[in-house]
Formats: sequence, structure tokens, C-alpha cells
Amino acid sequence: MAREPRRPDTPFWVEPSAVRGSRLLLDEQESHHLLKVHRSGPGAPFEAVDGEGTLYRCVIDAVDRHQVIGRIEGRERDAGELRASIHLLVGMPDVAAAESVVARAVPLGATAIAFVRSSRAEPWRESEARSGRLARLARAALKQCRRTRMPRIVFAPSLQIALEEMPAGPRFLADSGGTTWSESLRSGVSEGETLAVGPPGGFDPEEVDLLRAEDFTCISLGPNRLTTEDAVGALLALARQKFLPPTPSRH
Amino acid sequence: MAREPRRPDTPFWVEPSAVRGSRLLLDEQESHHLLKVHRSGPGAPFEAVDGEGTLYRCVIDAVDRHQVIGRIEGRERDAGELRASIHLLVGMPDVAAAESVVARAVPLGATAIAFVRSSRAEPWRESEARSGRLARLARAALKQCRRTRMPRIVFAPSLQIALEEMPAGPRFLADSGGTTWSESLRSGVSEGETLAVGPPGGFDPEEVDLLRAEDFTCISLGPNRLTTEDAVGALLALARQKFLPPTPSRH
Repeated sequence: MAREPRRPDTPFWVEPSAVRGSRLLLDEQESHHLLKVHRSGPGAPFEAVDGEGTLYRCVIDAVDRHQVIGRIEGRERDAGELRASIHLLVGMPDVAAAESVVARAVPLGATAIAFVRSSRAEPWRESEARSGRLARLARAALKQCRRTRMPRIVFAPSLQIALEEMPAGPRFLADSGGTTWSESLRSGVSEGETLAVGPPGGFDPEEVDLLRAEDFTCISLGPNRLTTEDAVGALLALARQKFLPPTPSRH
Repeated sequence: MAREPRRPDTPFWVEPSAVRGSRLLLDEQESHHLLKVHRSGPGAPFEAVDGEGTLYRCVIDAVDRHQVIGRIEGRERDAGELRASIHLLVGMPDVAAAESVVARAVPLGATAIAFVRSSRAEPWRESEARSGRLARLARAALKQCRRTRMPRIVFAPSLQIALEEMPAGPRFLADSGGTTWSESLRSGVSEGETLAVGPPGGFDPEEVDLLRAEDFTCISLGPNRLTTEDAVGALLALARQKFLPPTPSRH
């Protein structure tokens, strides 16, 4: 008896340019994964995300030169996305911690991550290899957590320059001298907000003053020390609450 | 000129039984770290935590057979700790994810972590090797984050048994069918609360029913899928807010 094809839990990546009308084409690597690891064949269901906000529900239509051609049976816009954007501004930690920041921030809905040069930050050079590695990590995390919009990851040579890219909405800085988080710190619904977290050792006093002058509110994340990635995770968990879509009640 | 001794940022571990009056004794491993890695000697300042809620401010008094004898100059009770206990009940993920749960939960203030057998959980055996490894990881995290109370890590053979150990305060379960987190879900100050997070794949419907019958409120953590460790981090970040000590205002 034929095995009932089971849809893989995790969507596949499809480049936006590889979607044409009611068909899409997976690249060789994604196709290999679907055909060999999941042992799927024509007629089997799968999902794909394009990083630009669309989840596609598909079945395998055909396989052409090791590439899966999918027939699109449904589309969902902004699947897995929050209702507003959250921009992160992170003092550059070492490479391993930068990867942890990306792995931590993507499932919690970050829209953009700017790693910024600051006085206590790790010295770093922007390189294609590093950008490529962080982008691959972000893409894997995006698929894994079933989001659909790929966060933008950038490197900024100074706080001042990074701030120019940030939206006008509410701004919060993780800072042990700050106040406790409260929903009342935000008035009304905004298009997006910005969260800043210092490098290991924190932003220096001048940098904190600059951020305060740029309307960042200092938020204490508690009585103990957090790593950059733990602080990113904790601040995002608080900030995203307001942007969750309404949930259907099961009961 | 003599170098001004700088206090290491991270406290050292001291067994409660190695504290006597105004002196304490570091074990050989901690002593080695302080003497060799930090190149500290008699007169140099350091801090120690005992895992039972005390931070000791010390200076090196003497070194006896490779062990540091510290003179205690100050004590701080419950340094780095929240104002109430948070118990975690986690469906057992695989070993690597269990380690991530511990690494994630300790800096966010968890008081106890119960890994529980459930229908979709990884099969596991409680072993001394595994318990020892998780305890070492928790201790390293405790020092790193400057907390002072060592979380208890236990393995429970069933949800029912794990629940018997949980405090009577508010109880929350990460569940995509639940409502959005809100402070109004908690009334008054409680002695402690319990957070439950399923294994990869979640608790099964019967387990969710059991938890609901035991007064767990289902909380949705958002529109996308989170790993067990990401859900633990997000739920803890929300729940701990109420238990942060008041922060001094710098301005």
C-alpha cells in the first residue's frame, strides 16, 4: 500500500523570482531535502516561504533536472509575522554571540538587526563571509519558526548612523539603571519600535546619553547580569506582546 | 610598580560548608582559576556565591595547599535574585535542548526546573551523568549571571507527579490556543508561580486538559512556532517582570 504522504513540518525556501503564477521552483538544495530527506514525490504536499511575507501551500507537480516544481494551492500573507516591525540595535558582540543574537531574535519576530560599532563592542570587520553566514542562519531560523519575512541584518559603523535607519516609534534600551517594563510606557499603536542592547560590558555613558537624547527609555531587565543575547531575547519577549495577532479561542 | 588588583567580574563558587565565620575556602579548581587565570594573589579582591542565596565580598587572605582562603568583608543576601520563586515544568526535549533550557532559564531567574516525561517527550533515563552535567551547566550560568540561589533541577516520571511539587500560585502554560499574556491575569502578589512548556510537538490534548484542570492558564506566545527553549525564555521574560526588585533611578 502506498504511504499517505505527510507534509513536512518545516517550510522550504523559495526565491521570490522563482514564483510564477500558480507554480514555483525550489532550488537544488531545497529540492534535494524535500525529495531525499523527506522522500517526497509527485503529489506530495509541502510549504514554502519566500522571505517577503508569503507562505505557499503546494504539492509537488513535477521534478525537472533535480528541481521540484510545485503547484501552488494556497497563499497566506504575513504568516507567522507580528503586526508591527521591531528593529534591533545591538552593540557588536563576538562572532559566536552575534550568531546567538540572530538565532534568538528571528523566532521572536525581529524585523531588522543592526549590529553597531560602539566603544566596548568587539572590533569587527564587515565581510561577505560573515554577512553570508548570518543570513544563512537567519533563513534557517525563519523556516524553522514558520515566519515569512526575512529580517534585514546590517552592520553600522556608529550608533549615530544606525539611528538614522530606525523608525520613529517607541524606543527602549536595556539598561540596569532603568525602570521596569510596563505596557503603559507605550501610548497608542505604533508602526514599529526599536530596541537597543549594548555589547558585553554595555554601551558607555556617552552612548547611553546619546540614546536617551534620541528618545530611548531605559528598561531594567532585572537584578542580575544578562548576556547580550539573553537581554535581546528578554526585551523582545516583552516588546512583541503588543504586536501579537489576536488568537482564536479554542474553548 | 605593583598592578592595582582588579576584581574579577564573575564570582567564584564556594560550598556553603566551606564558609566558617569570617573566612571561606575555595576548592582547588576555583582557586586555580582565581590564582592562575586571573593571576590574583594575597590581598586581591574577589566575590563568591554559595548557591544558597549569599554573595560574599572577599579578599585573598592566604593560599594553603593550592586553595584560596578568603577573608569575608561583606555579605549580600539574595543578590541577583527575584522577589518570588518561578518553577518551570518542561516536557523533556533531547539532551542538547535540555541543556539550552537550563542555560536559558538560569539567567532569567528560574527557581526550579522539572523535566517531565510526557507522551511526545524524548525518551530519557535519569542518570547521574546527565544530572551532573546539567548541574555543572546551571552552576556556571549562575556565576556568570551573578545570581546566588542554585535552581533545583529534577526529572519527573509524569506530569501528575511533577505537579505535586509545584507551588500553589498562578500557573501558566505556553499554548498557541491560549490568550495573550497580561499582567491582569495575576491578582495580588504571590509567593511563586509555575510555568509549563511542552516538549517539541507540545503536550498532547490529554496532558493539556490535565494542566487546565490544575489551574494552568494557556498563554499564546505568538503567531509562529517556538522551540522549547525559546518558549521557556519568552514565558520567563514575561513572568519574571512582576518579581523584579525595585530599581534605583539614576536620574
